[in-house]
Amino acid sequence: MTQPTDKPWGGRFNEPTDAFVEAFTASIGFDKRLYHHDIRGSIAHATMLQRVGVLTKEEADTIIDGLRAIEAEIEAGQFEWSVSLEDIHMNIEARLTARIGNVGKKLHTGRSRNDQVATDIRLYLRDEIDIVAEELARLRSGLIELAAREADTIMPGFTHLQTAQPVTFGHHLLAWQEMITRDHERLLDCRKRVNILPLGAAALAGTTYPIDRHVTAELLGFERPSENSLDAVSDRDFAIEFASFASILLMHMSRMSEELVLWTSAQFNFINLPDRFCTGSSIMPQKKNPDVPELVRGKTGRVYGHLMGLLTLMKSQPLAYNKDNQEDKEPLFDTLDTVKGCLKAFADMVPALEPRRDSMYEAARRGYSTATDLADYLVRKGTPFRDAHEVVGKSVAYGIEQGKDLSEMSLDELRQFSDVIGDDVFDVLTLEGSVNARNHIGGTAPDQVRAAAQRARDALSRLTASQNAQGEESRLS
Amino acid sequence: MTQPTDKPWGGRFNEPTDAFVEAFTASIGFDKRLYHHDIRGSIAHATMLQRVGVLTKEEADTIIDGLRAIEAEIEAGQFEWSVSLEDIHMNIEARLTARIGNVGKKLHTGRSRNDQVATDIRLYLRDEIDIVAEELARLRSGLIELAAREADTIMPGFTHLQTAQPVTFGHHLLAWQEMITRDHERLLDCRKRVNILPLGAAALAGTTYPIDRHVTAELLGFERPSENSLDAVSDRDFAIEFASFASILLMHMSRMSEELVLWTSAQFNFINLPDRFCTGSSIMPQKKNPDVPELVRGKTGRVYGHLMGLLTLMKSQPLAYNKDNQEDKEPLFDTLDTVKGCLKAFADMVPALEPRRDSMYEAARRGYSTATDLADYLVRKGTPFRDAHEVVGKSVAYGIEQGKDLSEMSLDELRQFSDVIGDDVFDVLTLEGSVNARNHIGGTAPDQVRAAAQRARDALSRLTASQNAQGEESRLS
Amino acid sequence: MTQPTDKPWGGRFNEPTDAFVEAFTASIGFDKRLYHHDIRGSIAHATMLQRVGVLTKEEADTIIDGLRAIEAEIEAGQFEWSVSLEDIHMNIEARLTARIGNVGKKLHTGRSRNDQVATDIRLYLRDEIDIVAEELARLRSGLIELAAREADTIMPGFTHLQTAQPVTFGHHLLAWQEMITRDHERLLDCRKRVNILPLGAAALAGTTYPIDRHVTAELLGFERPSENSLDAVSDRDFAIEFASFASILLMHMSRMSEELVLWTSAQFNFINLPDRFCTGSSIMPQKKNPDVPELVRGKTGRVYGHLMGLLTLMKSQPLAYNKDNQEDKEPLFDTLDTVKGCLKAFADMVPALEPRRDSMYEAARRGYSTATDLADYLVRKGTPFRDAHEVVGKSVAYGIEQGKDLSEMSLDELRQFSDVIGDDVFDVLTLEGSVNARNHIGGTAPDQVRAAAQRARDALSRLTASQNAQGEESRLS
Amino acid sequence: MTQPTDKPWGGRFNEPTDAFVEAFTASIGFDKRLYHHDIRGSIAHATMLQRVGVLTKEEADTIIDGLRAIEAEIEAGQFEWSVSLEDIHMNIEARLTARIGNVGKKLHTGRSRNDQVATDIRLYLRDEIDIVAEELARLRSGLIELAAREADTIMPGFTHLQTAQPVTFGHHLLAWQEMITRDHERLLDCRKRVNILPLGAAALAGTTYPIDRHVTAELLGFERPSENSLDAVSDRDFAIEFASFASILLMHMSRMSEELVLWTSAQFNFINLPDRFCTGSSIMPQKKNPDVPELVRGKTGRVYGHLMGLLTLMKSQPLAYNKDNQEDKEPLFDTLDTVKGCLKAFADMVPALEPRRDSMYEAARRGYSTATDLADYLVRKGTPFRDAHEVVGKSVAYGIEQGKDLSEMSLDELRQFSDVIGDDVFDVLTLEGSVNARNHIGGTAPDQVRAAAQRARDALSRLTASQNAQGEESRLS
Repeated sequence: MTQPTDKPWGGRFNEPTDAFVEAFTASIGFDKRLYHHDIRGSIAHATMLQRVGVLTKEEADTIIDGLRAIEAEIEAGQFEWSVSLEDIHMNIEARLTARIGNVGKKLHTGRSRNDQVATDIRLYLRDEIDIVAEELARLRSGLIELAAREADTIMPGFTHLQTAQPVTFGHHLLAWQEMITRDHERLLDCRKRVNILPLGAAALAGTTYPIDRHVTAELLGFERPSENSLDAVSDRDFAIEFASFASILLMHMSRMSEELVLWTSAQFNFINLPDRFCTGSSIMPQKKNPDVPELVRGKTGRVYGHLMGLLTLMKSQPLAYNKDNQEDKEPLFDTLDTVKGCLKAFADMVPALEPRRDSMYEAARRGYSTATDLADYLVRKGTPFRDAHEVVGKSVAYGIEQGKDLSEMSLDELRQFSDVIGDDVFDVLTLEGSVNARNHIGGTAPDQVRAAAQRARDALSRLTASQNAQGEESRLS
Repeated sequence: MTQPTDKPWGGRFNEPTDAFVEAFTASIGFDKRLYHHDIRGSIAHATMLQRVGVLTKEEADTIIDGLRAIEAEIEAGQFEWSVSLEDIHMNIEARLTARIGNVGKKLHTGRSRNDQVATDIRLYLRDEIDIVAEELARLRSGLIELAAREADTIMPGFTHLQTAQPVTFGHHLLAWQEMITRDHERLLDCRKRVNILPLGAAALAGTTYPIDRHVTAELLGFERPSENSLDAVSDRDFAIEFASFASILLMHMSRMSEELVLWTSAQFNFINLPDRFCTGSSIMPQKKNPDVPELVRGKTGRVYGHLMGLLTLMKSQPLAYNKDNQEDKEPLFDTLDTVKGCLKAFADMVPALEPRRDSMYEAARRGYSTATDLADYLVRKGTPFRDAHEVVGKSVAYGIEQGKDLSEMSLDELRQFSDVIGDDVFDVLTLEGSVNARNHIGGTAPDQVRAAAQRARDALSRLTASQNAQGEESRLS
Repeated sequence: MTQPTDKPWGGRFNEPTDAFVEAFTASIGFDKRLYHHDIRGSIAHATMLQRVGVLTKEEADTIIDGLRAIEAEIEAGQFEWSVSLEDIHMNIEARLTARIGNVGKKLHTGRSRNDQVATDIRLYLRDEIDIVAEELARLRSGLIELAAREADTIMPGFTHLQTAQPVTFGHHLLAWQEMITRDHERLLDCRKRVNILPLGAAALAGTTYPIDRHVTAELLGFERPSENSLDAVSDRDFAIEFASFASILLMHMSRMSEELVLWTSAQFNFINLPDRFCTGSSIMPQKKNPDVPELVRGKTGRVYGHLMGLLTLMKSQPLAYNKDNQEDKEPLFDTLDTVKGCLKAFADMVPALEPRRDSMYEAARRGYSTATDLADYLVRKGTPFRDAHEVVGKSVAYGIEQGKDLSEMSLDELRQFSDVIGDDVFDVLTLEGSVNARNHIGGTAPDQVRAAAQRARDALSRLTASQNAQGEESRLS
Repeated sequence: MTQPTDKPWGGRFNEPTDAFVEAFTASIGFDKRLYHHDIRGSIAHATMLQRVGVLTKEEADTIIDGLRAIEAEIEAGQFEWSVSLEDIHMNIEARLTARIGNVGKKLHTGRSRNDQVATDIRLYLRDEIDIVAEELARLRSGLIELAAREADTIMPGFTHLQTAQPVTFGHHLLAWQEMITRDHERLLDCRKRVNILPLGAAALAGTTYPIDRHVTAELLGFERPSENSLDAVSDRDFAIEFASFASILLMHMSRMSEELVLWTSAQFNFINLPDRFCTGSSIMPQKKNPDVPELVRGKTGRVYGHLMGLLTLMKSQPLAYNKDNQEDKEPLFDTLDTVKGCLKAFADMVPALEPRRDSMYEAARRGYSTATDLADYLVRKGTPFRDAHEVVGKSVAYGIEQGKDLSEMSLDELRQFSDVIGDDVFDVLTLEGSVNARNHIGGTAPDQVRAAAQRARDALSRLTASQNAQGEESRLS
């Protein structure tokens, strides 16, 4: 009785897989990236099988030694990947049996590729999340320190890209830092839901072997085994939740990038990006392009796309595992690579940003940015806010006509619009007066910025400490 | 000096807004839904202004009474909305000044529409999240109780929509419950980031008035004031994070819906949906259509779309507030309505599902669903798993040819493929034997299902208790 | 024998629809917008039924008169919509029978709501497409005429938002016009596929009545009846294709908007937007915000979202009609409203743009924008392009150091970098010289811009003429 | 004067690019796929430069020979790609200069990487579109021929996945064919807009060299040069439009896949997929999984994701070229690969589908699928349609109670519900009677299916003929 196919599942099949179909459905081209976590998972599985008596000590040792040897082969570039073995699991298992003989076949006892791949991805993603978290911390730290240094640097604050009110550059950088802080929190919330063990679900219903899933969970540093086998093999929420975290992060980075691109333009000229973060033009010799922020902004699309792809993938799938799910890996891997690349680029670049302080100050001085301060002054003199607003609106209209900023008008000119205005008005019309006056939690006053930077520094240390503890635990296990 | 426009911001303008532009840019058509939260926020703001001495007690009281009277007008349907007043904030404030005179104009002291609208949406969303959480709890509870009742009901478990192994219907329902549990957790993680006070950021930089943001935060039940004013007025993460929660939830519901649609088909016939959840056809008199799950499945698209819309909206926006952000409301509101509608429909429907137990059992009996059990049996007799797999594969191929299920073959027929098979094989080929054997945490054995239902019940009570405490706090404040 | 439900399909049902389910599944709230097209389709259907002998002349006339009366009721606001009648079709048909008695029930002969709704939407969408096409033409025309007026206005052209080379404002406007032209073409390609008659597909398989679909198609101005009944009732490609057109259009408008927002900033100051297209701030009296372009940019998200929603909706749906499809209408309607609003706003606004020519010219003069011209000059003197590039790169580095533009350097300074440079170099370093030199099809030379505007004008007239013919045909029929 | 960077654009730079930034921003890893089209474009450019006198005949020949030699190197796997040369254009040009010396530097005269890359992608995409069109034609042909063979095979038609009316399997296949036909048309509409020459736009404004873009367009088989240089380098509509075509195509394929998955389930059992298109399970020996349709259904997500990614990429980009645009390639390439793979898999598989005719017929016989025929019968006897509907509804309710299909009831039983029913009713209750009666264009009657197949065959030949002519033209040029 010869077999028409040499696949491990070929018993009931009457003809071999079509060659194109074999290549089209194989995942080894991209899932070999999981080799380390597949082997780590298999070692834990073998250890557990031995503890519960399904494998003898000798069998387990032989298997584990074999797996370690295969890992070494892979890392030395000596492993031969086979498309006809479909995926990372089959490739490694076939090699294991080739190396250690029939005992290798016992490794698959009590598990299926369905729970095995879910375990591999969760292990892999958990490790990658820890790397991403470190880069987030590095970026936050860069922002906080630059903000502290630039707590007194005045620039125009914009709404609708129109000059609105003076703010400090440090304050602006801390706004970025707040965005990234939320991303950091979301990542750690996501990690909780990644860190659950699916192994033991087998194909979909659990297994008839006397497995102990708590042991495997502990060996792999998972918080607990999953509660339901059908869910365990069909759940891909973790990939979607990570892609959702990544989409919001890239959205934030696209906003920071947009501002960096604006600020490096001749028109704004607020920032110099060192040459090492820029490239030139093959035709226009004068060009120095802010490639890094532009490219990061562009990469937003690919991450949004992966999120949408993953959501579409899972829509309307009946339980439990379907082949569709193989499509979860490439978007997840590319999202991870993109996130790590963008964060590294920004974490390297942020400390090297060179503010052009004079240019920022000058821009803030134009554009009637202290108009609100004038209105507030009028209110303090007893004018209701809405009336004060109108007085200032008319002063500005007059200023535009005359080509004068508010601080350039004479007292008489100002008093045309309200006779409560006195000599003391000129104090509130300075940029320094304006920013210092916004002196409450969250406000742009330099003292507030310094205090906010210190709070941010403390919060980051606390988070990093707890993060390291968590990561340590997963690595030790 | 007359004004060309009667807008509260019209001082510097020389011509009135174009009529079409006015209608095109107005938000009152959809943001009036925020009236209660706008008024609640204004009352807290007025109270704080009084406490810090910006308003007198009398002024604050007049304002607060005025606001309460306006709320009553709105709820009585007597309020006249004006498109030329653009949005909910201006509509209410104009009415306030009409009712109480100039003191009404003082309410806007120390705030801007930018921080006001951010506060309104966060208050609104927080309340809606609490309603959504209740519906999630109701749906989970319905699933748990039905699962407990159907812990012994055997049905085929599928992978690739091919019969895989027998499972219990209760186990399948608990897989759904696990999905919804993760959604519930994600919602509560999201709530933490919603529950932050932006008010006090004013337009973008904070305000020169001596406000106390901790007071306002406490009055509105927010956990704390936001850390940075630029971020406070430009952040829309909360809407995106909620839409992301909602997208994953709807994805889950689309999977449940897909299965309900399959199960009510003549081909599966696993479930009866009571007539009250179905509709008929205007042309085919025999039809009874599973409208509710179909429609919920269809609504997945709209929620994914809103997520994508919100992500796109925020991409590349420079700080701080831009008019673009006005587009955050409609997708958020529609996402909320959709989520509440779908959850209500399912929470009502799940307890009314009528399993057709015979039909499920019969389907599990066909399709060689105990093939894995036979393989495991062979392993217990000493055959390596991969070899056992091949033996069973050949038995199945033979069965398909002969039109016999495994349990219908004679011992001799089975022994063609492996001579370790003995009389005791027939025990493992029964459905009951199969499900009972998967007796570990997460497995489909009825005892496990009952235990899992109990754990789920406990977890839900704990969560609901803590949720109620949180909600209470927000309402009291 | 009484019925537990008064639904037209209630014969086989044992209990009435749950009240919440009734409201949740009803579409009348949004599909009543189709009333005119539903009635128009019904009149054509009745006319056809009469021609083939299924209805008598008298019956058909009674039905048609009844339908016209109902249309009048609706337009007079006297029609009472009923949620329990689910949708526009049932509402109108029930009213018809109430008005004209049993003969009204004959109208539904040979059709189903499945083909009826597909017909209604296609009729509706075709009419709306014609309106959208008119607005596209109006916008294109505005761009062309402004471009022709501004063919000589010099501004900096940007790549990477860095000053690259001088271009003319007219040239830039024609770039926008090219984008919109492709959108226009895509819309007309989409219209071809909308303009197909589904009626006659009945529920899914066609009908046993001797209908003549060519007659109905002709009466409704459709190009032809659809080829396959299953496809006819399940196809929603037209909605997706329209949403895809709309997404690309809004993408283009977001780019135009982004530039308008940049150009109205104090930093660029290239454009003045008349006050009637702007609004102000409730707190900052000096602000004049470019609301229209900002809002249009923001609306990009909602249209992308609708596209994604519709694609998700249709993913994996088995044939033929499923209730999911009811979800096609709201995104389509909102896409149409958004597209029409944005186009109207832009078509009104573009002719009113006020370029600040001095400011544009001055910006082009800075930033080494003629560096490429210097390189080309060197090439004409025999230097290989890549070497010339390097020479100019060094000159620019020197200029940045010295704070001088290329045209501000002395001949000696320039000759430091290449001794082929002569006195004639200063001709190529002027802005006028630079733009005039790019004198080939597609280039920015003012003469090319004028010629391109003329070609665009001609192309638009040709298209509009053919469009009008098409629209005429649909309206006449 | 030494250069701190050896980049072709390094003249004005003071420090080399950061190593990580260099790798992060390089595109050579994926754009080398364009080598053939880059070289083809360069040959045409050199030819044109020679014709207009910018290059001598000898220079042009040297360049062209050099380019051909480089192409041979690449195809022989002997080319060394360099990340520090960033992209395919620089890699080839550096190699050209290395091979042929300084004359190689002249090739870049009158062009920039901005117009060069736009040309490369359009050439590449046009060729790929022609391949995709061939696969579409092959799939359509497979569907048409199978439909013609199965014109008489009766199966249940479904709406809401409930048995609705009998249809023929051929009719169902032609519904699929209609979907793919629309995709085919959309692809050819897209091709028109791809087939435009951007070269000559140079960086953004055109060039000062006396180029003749009509010559280059003709040499490369483009329909015409683009009209506007700014648009030419910034337009990525073609990629989005292709992704939009691909998304609708994959949506259609996901629907076909969904049905194939359903039909191969034990519950439906309508179809056998030959073993060569399936795979098995590593744990469940009996499994035969419909991997190909499942995977294609899963790949829908990735294509939707790429569409969304590209739309996001282009949102709000100011003109002209920005680095963001580099992100257009990977999604486009992956979309192409996915589309070609899915189409090949389906075009191979469709002719091999094995309908289980008995099983289909039996399923149609159950489920009251001829209820509409009974209603139509009553109408022909004078009952208004809506009343007939109710009579049949009650008959079905009775049938469900009694466990009898309509055709299994006695005349007396049927006459309980309407006394116009006579002996002749049994003719209309047969499946053959039902399908034959839907005998109009688009209907399911076997004769209509055969006629529709013939029309489809004719339409396909006409289209293929015109397509071949177009492709020929591009290849010849």
